[in-house]
Amino acid sequence: MAVIECIPNVSEGRRLDVIDACTAAIVATGAHLLDVKPDATHNRTVFTFAGAPAAVEAGAIALFDTALAHIDLRHHHGEHPRLGAVDVTPFVPIEGATMADCVAIARRVGETVAARHQLPVYLYEEAATSPARRNLEDIRRGEFEGLAAKMQKPEWAPDFGPAAPHASAGASVVGARMPLIAYNINLATNRLDVAKKIATAIRQSSGGLRFVKAMGLELADRGIVQVSMNLTNYEKTPIFRVFEMVKREAERYGVSILESEIVGLIPSAALTSAAAWYLQVEGFSDGQVLENKLRQ
Amino acid sequence: MAVIECIPNVSEGRRLDVIDACTAAIVATGAHLLDVKPDATHNRTVFTFAGAPAAVEAGAIALFDTALAHIDLRHHHGEHPRLGAVDVTPFVPIEGATMADCVAIARRVGETVAARHQLPVYLYEEAATSPARRNLEDIRRGEFEGLAAKMQKPEWAPDFGPAAPHASAGASVVGARMPLIAYNINLATNRLDVAKKIATAIRQSSGGLRFVKAMGLELADRGIVQVSMNLTNYEKTPIFRVFEMVKREAERYGVSILESEIVGLIPSAALTSAAAWYLQVEGFSDGQVLENKLRQ
Repeated sequence: MAVIECIPNVSEGRRLDVIDACTAAIVATGAHLLDVKPDATHNRTVFTFAGAPAAVEAGAIALFDTALAHIDLRHHHGEHPRLGAVDVTPFVPIEGATMADCVAIARRVGETVAARHQLPVYLYEEAATSPARRNLEDIRRGEFEGLAAKMQKPEWAPDFGPAAPHASAGASVVGARMPLIAYNINLATNRLDVAKKIATAIRQSSGGLRFVKAMGLELADRGIVQVSMNLTNYEKTPIFRVFEMVKREAERYGVSILESEIVGLIPSAALTSAAAWYLQVEGFSDGQVLENKLRQ
Repeated sequence: MAVIECIPNVSEGRRLDVIDACTAAIVATGAHLLDVKPDATHNRTVFTFAGAPAAVEAGAIALFDTALAHIDLRHHHGEHPRLGAVDVTPFVPIEGATMADCVAIARRVGETVAARHQLPVYLYEEAATSPARRNLEDIRRGEFEGLAAKMQKPEWAPDFGPAAPHASAGASVVGARMPLIAYNINLATNRLDVAKKIATAIRQSSGGLRFVKAMGLELADRGIVQVSMNLTNYEKTPIFRVFEMVKREAERYGVSILESEIVGLIPSAALTSAAAWYLQVEGFSDGQVLENKLRQ
């Protein structure tokens, strides 16, 4: 039984009736709703749902139908950058499904909603059709307000749909990516410079590990500092390697790790692979996890 | 959705038609067959199946019906000690089920098969009705051949069924226990004395950890030695604590751990708790594992 996750970000974080309508549209297709996180300041809601590929695909399409009927970006303001009413929709392989499956779903969903709503759609990350479109930030630069001008450039012709923005819904970004793990490590010190130096050492952007985003910040109420991270591919940059690297860098400054924190959900395999590494288990296979075997 | 596992040991390891009939009886109730391991030398087969409590309970009762129709211990010989045609039947909580649920199932199965087959049944481990009956070895001592004499003693009156052996099927032991993890640690040395000293240090019987059985043995073909273990309660004596204790004891002799090995299946929680310990995750809950959340 394959399971795929979908985490659409919708440009509405204030009107609860609209958010409820979006939730209802997703659930009606048989997908399993995991989380709905509205943010009034960002004026944006993150939905998380998962299930069999067909249900998740149908849920995403139904969400576009509902969101586009209710959201008009010409009257939308919020802190978070956005390009479309349904801003970004990633599909994520969880179990019994490959990245290729998620790319195929992203393309079908993109093609369907583009045709149905005359909506320009860009494919991103693993579903991108060129390296210049892998990064969400590059596609979204200029936002809704700059979209008409941006789309006049040939290199920003959409992957599906018309070569001009949808009047009220802008454009949408659809794609496939690995599950993201939000992981923080708290240090037994109040030295913010140490947290910042460690973040710089471990993150890709400044020379560190390929699939780590990191920053150092202060937890003022606790008198400690934190290395706050997103791990964007736990198979290639596993959580245990990140932990050990932070630990070693901290030692350089005479600092210990106080504790770590997994924010939200984490795929089982990210933890079982850490256990297998620390316990030096040779020849371990996910099929040895009793629960996985039961579900084969 | 609760899942319970059952691992009956049946006194037949040679006649494949009988083993197949037992397998068919289990599967017909809707339980999920995980493994069938016949052993001709022991003349004994270990069945492993799991599923919803009702299916597993029905599967165990169906197995008794089939095994008792085909097995006559008066003509049975094998290396492994045995008391009955269906020798021992433990029920194990896997997820969404408690030990109390498994004890209740063990009692119902024991009562049912005792009444249906006029079979004496002893309850053991967590289902035992007195401390003297917790250990399988104590109940089984004297085996099938000594059973009639043993049962004349009032302290060996069965928990269910008649106070004398079944002519062909002897008696059966039914109960509830935690999942057992078969875990081996290979040492980067050929010194058997070191493996034996470590086994002695860590196992309960000689003063070590409460839920560890261990012995040191030689892997002659590889020129190394192994600490071979059964972990009988991974919640109370977790796998990471055992690993770290073996590692520390080995250091005392200048020996490193080469690798470890999980034999067969392991519950997911045994690995995720190890990951959480090594990564120093504060406030980790099993509900954060994405797959668990999906199945709630």
